[in-house]
Amino acid sequence: MALSIHYDIMSQPSRSVLLFCEVNNISYEKEITTISSGDNQADEFKAINPMGRVPAMKDGDFTLTESEAILKYLVNKYKTPDHWYPSDPLKKAKVDEYLAWHHANTRTHCIRVFWTEVLIPKMKGRDVDQKKLAEALQLLDGTLSLLENMFLKDQPFLCGDDITLADLMAVPEFMQLTAAARNPFPNQPKLTAWLERVKSRLQPKFDEFHTPIYKMKQKRLKDTKANL
Amino acid sequence: MALSIHYDIMSQPSRSVLLFCEVNNISYEKEITTISSGDNQADEFKAINPMGRVPAMKDGDFTLTESEAILKYLVNKYKTPDHWYPSDPLKKAKVDEYLAWHHANTRTHCIRVFWTEVLIPKMKGRDVDQKKLAEALQLLDGTLSLLENMFLKDQPFLCGDDITLADLMAVPEFMQLTAAARNPFPNQPKLTAWLERVKSRLQPKFDEFHTPIYKMKQKRLKDTKANL
Repeated sequence: MALSIHYDIMSQPSRSVLLFCEVNNISYEKEITTISSGDNQADEFKAINPMGRVPAMKDGDFTLTESEAILKYLVNKYKTPDHWYPSDPLKKAKVDEYLAWHHANTRTHCIRVFWTEVLIPKMKGRDVDQKKLAEALQLLDGTLSLLENMFLKDQPFLCGDDITLADLMAVPEFMQLTAAARNPFPNQPKLTAWLERVKSRLQPKFDEFHTPIYKMKQKRLKDTKANL
Repeated sequence: MALSIHYDIMSQPSRSVLLFCEVNNISYEKEITTISSGDNQADEFKAINPMGRVPAMKDGDFTLTESEAILKYLVNKYKTPDHWYPSDPLKKAKVDEYLAWHHANTRTHCIRVFWTEVLIPKMKGRDVDQKKLAEALQLLDGTLSLLENMFLKDQPFLCGDDITLADLMAVPEFMQLTAAARNPFPNQPKLTAWLERVKSRLQPKFDEFHTPIYKMKQKRLKDTKANL
């Protein structure tokens, strides 16, 4: 049985896993699991991931959830280029350090902004709660400061000279914010340059997988103009 | 230069790292960094971890933060018994899966209960906000359900037959809740048995490192009795 990835292109960690497969020429079956249609709550999917979250992976009888775990599994199975998750213990430790930090920082704080600014207003048909958005942006600001000063510093990528799983996990989270025509790094030129660097390493699939986000951005810009 | 661990015994992930070193006979220098005294905000410590969080590790000139990354670094450096972080790719992936999930679930939701019930009332000298505590407990309940049904299931340990880094990271988080004389698993007998199993694998150091938590529990029970 082949490797299959269950994903929703709107899910940030789904995009991280898909990009990894594409860039490394890993063959996989695409199992589209659309959250907005409730595919992730269907019994068939819940048998793969009881949490109902994407991405999830099946490799034969082996199922795995959590994008970080899936990526590390694929690195090992397909012996992908060393830069993704270096075999050097010190370099590997630095990637692990960022990834451990990622979940309750980059991921949590980007999601909070996206939900407050895009998802909740869309689902509930109401205006953005500006007080909650300001709180979410303040939390994100702390994360950006650490991301820039503790992780990126003057390096081209988060953990050194080359792209790693850390960059691959982080960038789709920030791209999600652009759906609201938001600049994720208003005062962080180093992070802006880093995002472009990561993007260019993942083309042309990066743009392909971010098309729904680009479309949301265009729609938002058009609506904003129409309301002026 | 020797390996040094900067820690506060009141910090759950600090205890995970210390227990790992002790159980595996890894020599390390103890660098006590007391958060309540502000040691973690001192310039000397910030040079090691700009986030001001414990634990942090120094190994010669190499510094590392994030307990999960520290544990994986130590596994590799000291070639500890395979069960901690199995070399078998499927078993390893399952440990990575739990650890990726841990940060925004077990850790986040246990902390929320502990802060609401213990830390904030203590620091601000005010009563527990019962509404916030109820919200925190509800979130924790969802995490307990997944922990029991998705991870532990009918296994003795979270990722299979033997103790791994997953158990080592999880248990100190639940022990923190006992400081308020709270039973972390009021309706989860399987998790109760699991916690005892993990505990017994980590004795006698487990009890030694949890002494401040045990003392808080005793004080809480005494105060509650006095108030009756």
